[in-house]
Amino acid sequence: MAAKSNADYWVGFDLGATKMLAMVYSSSFDFCGKAKKKTKAYEGSKSGLNRISSAIFAALDKAGIKRDNLAGIGIGIPGLLDLEKGIVVDAPNLGWKKVRIRDSLEKKFGVPVVIINDVDAGVYGEYSMGAAKNARSVVGVFPGTGIGGGCIYEGKILRGKRNSCLEIGHIQVMPGGPLCGCGQRGCLEAVASRLSISAEAAKAAYRSDAPHLIEIAGTDLSNIRSGALAASINAGDKAIEMIVREAAAWIGVGVANIVNLLAPDVIVLGGGLVEAMPDIFQEAVEHTARQRAMAAFENSFKVTVAKLGDDATVAGAAAWAMKTVTEQNKGTP
Amino acid sequence: MAAKSNADYWVGFDLGATKMLAMVYSSSFDFCGKAKKKTKAYEGSKSGLNRISSAIFAALDKAGIKRDNLAGIGIGIPGLLDLEKGIVVDAPNLGWKKVRIRDSLEKKFGVPVVIINDVDAGVYGEYSMGAAKNARSVVGVFPGTGIGGGCIYEGKILRGKRNSCLEIGHIQVMPGGPLCGCGQRGCLEAVASRLSISAEAAKAAYRSDAPHLIEIAGTDLSNIRSGALAASINAGDKAIEMIVREAAAWIGVGVANIVNLLAPDVIVLGGGLVEAMPDIFQEAVEHTARQRAMAAFENSFKVTVAKLGDDATVAGAAAWAMKTVTEQNKGTP
Repeated sequence: MAAKSNADYWVGFDLGATKMLAMVYSSSFDFCGKAKKKTKAYEGSKSGLNRISSAIFAALDKAGIKRDNLAGIGIGIPGLLDLEKGIVVDAPNLGWKKVRIRDSLEKKFGVPVVIINDVDAGVYGEYSMGAAKNARSVVGVFPGTGIGGGCIYEGKILRGKRNSCLEIGHIQVMPGGPLCGCGQRGCLEAVASRLSISAEAAKAAYRSDAPHLIEIAGTDLSNIRSGALAASINAGDKAIEMIVREAAAWIGVGVANIVNLLAPDVIVLGGGLVEAMPDIFQEAVEHTARQRAMAAFENSFKVTVAKLGDDATVAGAAAWAMKTVTEQNKGTP
Repeated sequence: MAAKSNADYWVGFDLGATKMLAMVYSSSFDFCGKAKKKTKAYEGSKSGLNRISSAIFAALDKAGIKRDNLAGIGIGIPGLLDLEKGIVVDAPNLGWKKVRIRDSLEKKFGVPVVIINDVDAGVYGEYSMGAAKNARSVVGVFPGTGIGGGCIYEGKILRGKRNSCLEIGHIQVMPGGPLCGCGQRGCLEAVASRLSISAEAAKAAYRSDAPHLIEIAGTDLSNIRSGALAASINAGDKAIEMIVREAAAWIGVGVANIVNLLAPDVIVLGGGLVEAMPDIFQEAVEHTARQRAMAAFENSFKVTVAKLGDDATVAGAAAWAMKTVTEQNKGTP
């Protein structure tokens, strides 16, 4: 679908497992308005598509932008996507399979809709409006429940055989190490994700080594989230700080491998853990990465913390739609 | 420098540490003639540049191609290069530093000269004329004295901050493992290069576990090269076969990491070791890589053995010059 010629506002959308977020941007990346909604993915995709539409309408309303001035929509989605056909092939977090999201929304809004992996969108957001503006080669590392990654290479999203790539969480850093959700052992995710950190922290709390954490969150992994970890460290739980630093150092080992392979200009660290404890992550990841990368690459890269926080995916989805649709209109491949 | 309009023959050049090889190709990749020379890098770069020129003239002679019909020259070089300026910044294998190779040869031949990392050239050769023809994303893995790598992504050479990237030999596969030449421990190169294999094989020979190898090559690492390893395995040295298979399996672990990160369509294995023992490497690398990659990627890639052997770098250098110069003429970036 071609973009309208005089329309120059763009919607970025983050379709998360629990909440959805729509934001309106001008073509020069000025923020104009936003709307949030619960995803309620369990109600199924038909209801979900309706909720997406109404969130977009609400954001346009907030921004005071008429539908006629909308040029396109970019949607960041977790899971396996068919980018060419605009289909959500399999999104386990949403419980959606084979949902023709692009066609459905193009019909409703009459503008081009572009879908994109949510992590790729986050890295593209940091590349276009955030911490790694216009760098030639950027790798994003987002430790959370898992550890996501993406690479923007010369302005394009680096893609693998199944579209998304940079499965940084599954670099094998500790042969024979702890079991990973993917079935392998010793993946980075198995030693340094929020889940792994929380499990170690829960043990420390149980052993009475973390008096503040036990008060703040107890020993239940579901309660030991990024904020609780940060609060207990700030209150003085040295054991927790050590656990987080060690995990961050493992991420540094993963980053060293990425540097040896891709030699990117910038590594952007983001996600809930990093947002809650930016200094610890920046420091420990950078230190280990420089120590463990090849000497030739030791100082070839910058390590920085994401700037856009929760908005990275929305921003990136909007910017990516803008780029994709504009190039399509020009006939660029 | 712009190419001549009616010239359509190209020279590919492999500037090796001990020998240099020039080959002439038509623009449809037909081989027309070649010439070989010793590099004699120790005589210095001035003499070296003269030897390069005379090898190119000899190859043109052999091919029966006049200088007027030469469109361009591509040169594969080991070491750190400034691609934009056409300078060999530092090539430790040659002992050359700051050599303005492009300007020198452009002056001599009056055609555009393009320089390229030799491993990148090898992978580009397999991509353009060899085992991975026109695949969207190809990673080459070349175990030798070290373990080189390169990636051709959507027809372009993937580049890092210092130009070349994909330092596959320095993926860390065994934390705290054997010391690597780079100063780190447990790099893939430290457990699976020709040098590491030879050291293990020499131990086996010394322990009388490899009766054929001890006869063929003794216990000196300098003599235990790919051919000797292959011959001893063919003669029945089971201990040596196990050592090679184990090293190949480690390379498979490295490949699994690459698959999780880049999800390429094709992995091409090449270099002296693989050429000498193609079945063992193909089998063991593929088996381990599929076993250790994420389930989603398990069958997403092909593992294949290089087709061009020693000619890969020359072929790739010629093809890359062809592509680069043709695009420059068209004004494509």
